[in-house]
Amino acid sequence: MKIRIYNARILPMTEEKAGHFQIVEGEIQIIEDKIAYVGPSEIAPSGCGSTGKEQSASGADDKWDREIDAQGNLILPGFKNAHTHSGMTFLRSYADDLPLLDWLNKQVFPMEAKLTPEDVYLFSKLAVLEYLTSGITANFDMYLTPDTMAQASKDLGFRTVICGAVNDFVQSVPEMEKWYKTYNQFDPLISYQLGFHAEYTTSKPVLEDIAALAKDLKAPVYMHNSESCSETEQCIDRTGMTPTAYLDSLGMFAHGGGGFHCIHMTEEDLEIFKERGLYVVTNPASNMKLASGIPPLTKMLQMGIPVAIGTDGPASNNCLDMFREMFLVTGLAKLKEKDAAVVDAKEVLYMAAVQGARAIGLADCDSLAPGKQADLIMIDLHQPNMQPLNNLTKNIVYSGSKQNVVMTMIAGKILYEKGEFYVPEDVERLYADVNCRVEELKR
Amino acid sequence: MKIRIYNARILPMTEEKAGHFQIVEGEIQIIEDKIAYVGPSEIAPSGCGSTGKEQSASGADDKWDREIDAQGNLILPGFKNAHTHSGMTFLRSYADDLPLLDWLNKQVFPMEAKLTPEDVYLFSKLAVLEYLTSGITANFDMYLTPDTMAQASKDLGFRTVICGAVNDFVQSVPEMEKWYKTYNQFDPLISYQLGFHAEYTTSKPVLEDIAALAKDLKAPVYMHNSESCSETEQCIDRTGMTPTAYLDSLGMFAHGGGGFHCIHMTEEDLEIFKERGLYVVTNPASNMKLASGIPPLTKMLQMGIPVAIGTDGPASNNCLDMFREMFLVTGLAKLKEKDAAVVDAKEVLYMAAVQGARAIGLADCDSLAPGKQADLIMIDLHQPNMQPLNNLTKNIVYSGSKQNVVMTMIAGKILYEKGEFYVPEDVERLYADVNCRVEELKR
Repeated sequence: MKIRIYNARILPMTEEKAGHFQIVEGEIQIIEDKIAYVGPSEIAPSGCGSTGKEQSASGADDKWDREIDAQGNLILPGFKNAHTHSGMTFLRSYADDLPLLDWLNKQVFPMEAKLTPEDVYLFSKLAVLEYLTSGITANFDMYLTPDTMAQASKDLGFRTVICGAVNDFVQSVPEMEKWYKTYNQFDPLISYQLGFHAEYTTSKPVLEDIAALAKDLKAPVYMHNSESCSETEQCIDRTGMTPTAYLDSLGMFAHGGGGFHCIHMTEEDLEIFKERGLYVVTNPASNMKLASGIPPLTKMLQMGIPVAIGTDGPASNNCLDMFREMFLVTGLAKLKEKDAAVVDAKEVLYMAAVQGARAIGLADCDSLAPGKQADLIMIDLHQPNMQPLNNLTKNIVYSGSKQNVVMTMIAGKILYEKGEFYVPEDVERLYADVNCRVEELKR
Repeated sequence: MKIRIYNARILPMTEEKAGHFQIVEGEIQIIEDKIAYVGPSEIAPSGCGSTGKEQSASGADDKWDREIDAQGNLILPGFKNAHTHSGMTFLRSYADDLPLLDWLNKQVFPMEAKLTPEDVYLFSKLAVLEYLTSGITANFDMYLTPDTMAQASKDLGFRTVICGAVNDFVQSVPEMEKWYKTYNQFDPLISYQLGFHAEYTTSKPVLEDIAALAKDLKAPVYMHNSESCSETEQCIDRTGMTPTAYLDSLGMFAHGGGGFHCIHMTEEDLEIFKERGLYVVTNPASNMKLASGIPPLTKMLQMGIPVAIGTDGPASNNCLDMFREMFLVTGLAKLKEKDAAVVDAKEVLYMAAVQGARAIGLADCDSLAPGKQADLIMIDLHQPNMQPLNNLTKNIVYSGSKQNVVMTMIAGKILYEKGEFYVPEDVERLYADVNCRVEELKR
């Protein structure tokens, strides 16, 4: 497919760091799965309707499969959901308003124990639809059954980096090694990174095996890290070290990686993140809803630690909405520091679109430039919450909403446009199947 | 107009307090500006298309102007935005990421000084459009020029309660008395309540005049209250009392009223709110973005103090989105108390829909029952963030979004449906006018 989107404002986000993002007025051209051109239109389109005869700037002169008049709307790189558990959609609004341990032990774990791989396939597809509505073009998905997680994303055309979920109860290190090799060759949309659930659910011999595998594969490793105060304190009681320091002492971070949540972090923890080039993936809505706390984001950014954003799973959040997360990232930082000036909108947008990609091994999806993957979204500026056009970055981060997402494109394919899904799936049937299966699981 | 919406799930919210809201499966009938019937459909509609010949339950047997198949979607009372400054849309994304005093003194006040009444008319209309997209059916609007605020809402068919904004610099008590009489007779959609900006901007003689007027009119009084720590401390320095205690000592609350923000509240302040029947209007997004703090909401609810929700103005928030506010109300309370169980979804939905109406004198808009005003919204459940249907109240509060609002009806008129506005306004022209005027104001 060759697609040309003209009459657009484009935020390529190719700057090396968050700053004043340059807006390009013109067009973006997509050939197959890649971006071919971003820049001014050499010959302006003739009025509102396209004649299909305009000379394109890249010289690919005719035969566009589709020419889209963006009507001045904004194109930017898609958001990357850098930490989620997609298959947990079945628990949305099932268990909430409970203390954390009751929630996990009485509601989440007993229900998860009943799940089949086919359930994960079904429930992951529901999550993918929601990602598309929120302009999320890739996720970093930690859940139970990589086979059906990969299949769900592949079948819908969604980009997924599967994260290992080893602990003492599910998944083994040899399985993870096999999956690493399988799912880094499976499909261009699918990749795999090493990961384990958390220090507190994974015994030392298993952690040592993971560290050895990471060294062998020269691969980064990801895990939940310092999400709750008690988890951190218990690790210190057991090992004399914080989770970050303990994992580092095992050689876990020889080739980088990252931590999800990272709320209860010491100065030394942050130094390790900085030194090892580890990514913090912050999950603000989940951290509020489970009363976990507020991470020291201002400090992290001051130290140059890269930060990405994740929704966490739909059982704890409960929605998969990057707009809500973006507002919360800055709002919680401002509250924590009692300073309305910290963590500004540019930093947050950079986390959501650019750093999210780099955090999970998708550097070719981080920005809009020729040769990069065509993972992009269109934001409708013709809505009251986007007016006036004082500052588009601030409009997105402070007043943006899923409702503004009028197109989500992944690898050059439009999967969502003006409220309609263009995926090989009967969406109403999927909703019915999900509800039917949820009722069975509740019995 | 006679409108019948059938095949609906309806949340009438007629319960006396937040609890397990009963869902009615059936239809709602609207005749002119009022609800005529809520209940089961006596004769089910014949399939997807309506023949127009179904016998209605209320006996109003034919001649519906419109019959709408809700397709199983959810109807509930509209949200009430119980504190806002609509005319400030022009400052959206203009001044952010600044310390509070810089923001006010260097950005907000100099720009506001240039505003004409016609500007307020223009910018208020932009806000009204945004309210409609978020399912907000009424606002409590504190801003500069009541005449053009009232006209903007009346012209678009929106319901506005204007709040007096007296302080030592703008608006006088005699003006407020005149407006109170004028705008409580002006139009069924418009009403007026006494109010002043805040204790720290209003000198004692003016406050005494307001208290006297409130007693004379037997009217409640509303104001910003204890939004920032310094404001509260300075009041104590000046008067020996907190803002709440000081205003109460002047007899301000003889006939009730309420406070906006109410963050830095003492035990005694809460006792006064309880005793006087005052409403707390909480503004969580603004309180985060300006780093103002988190109110003691759990305590307020335990004491039985009624709580409503407002967005505050678009200069501080920056959006006018009740879904974001609802999530933040509970999320911030959970963080503050370090307890995931506090302020559950039912409480929050009750604040947004029911208490918001009662807080601002719109008791006939608080719920869906025969004789009440037909101020209601339809939530699309056929979207991935609303699935599965484990719990509709939680789905709305924890994962709902403006995108789910597929209809907003005020006084029996549909003003917004499936992304389109049905108001006597060229929306694109309005956006252009707003941008044009904003550029002039910036010069």
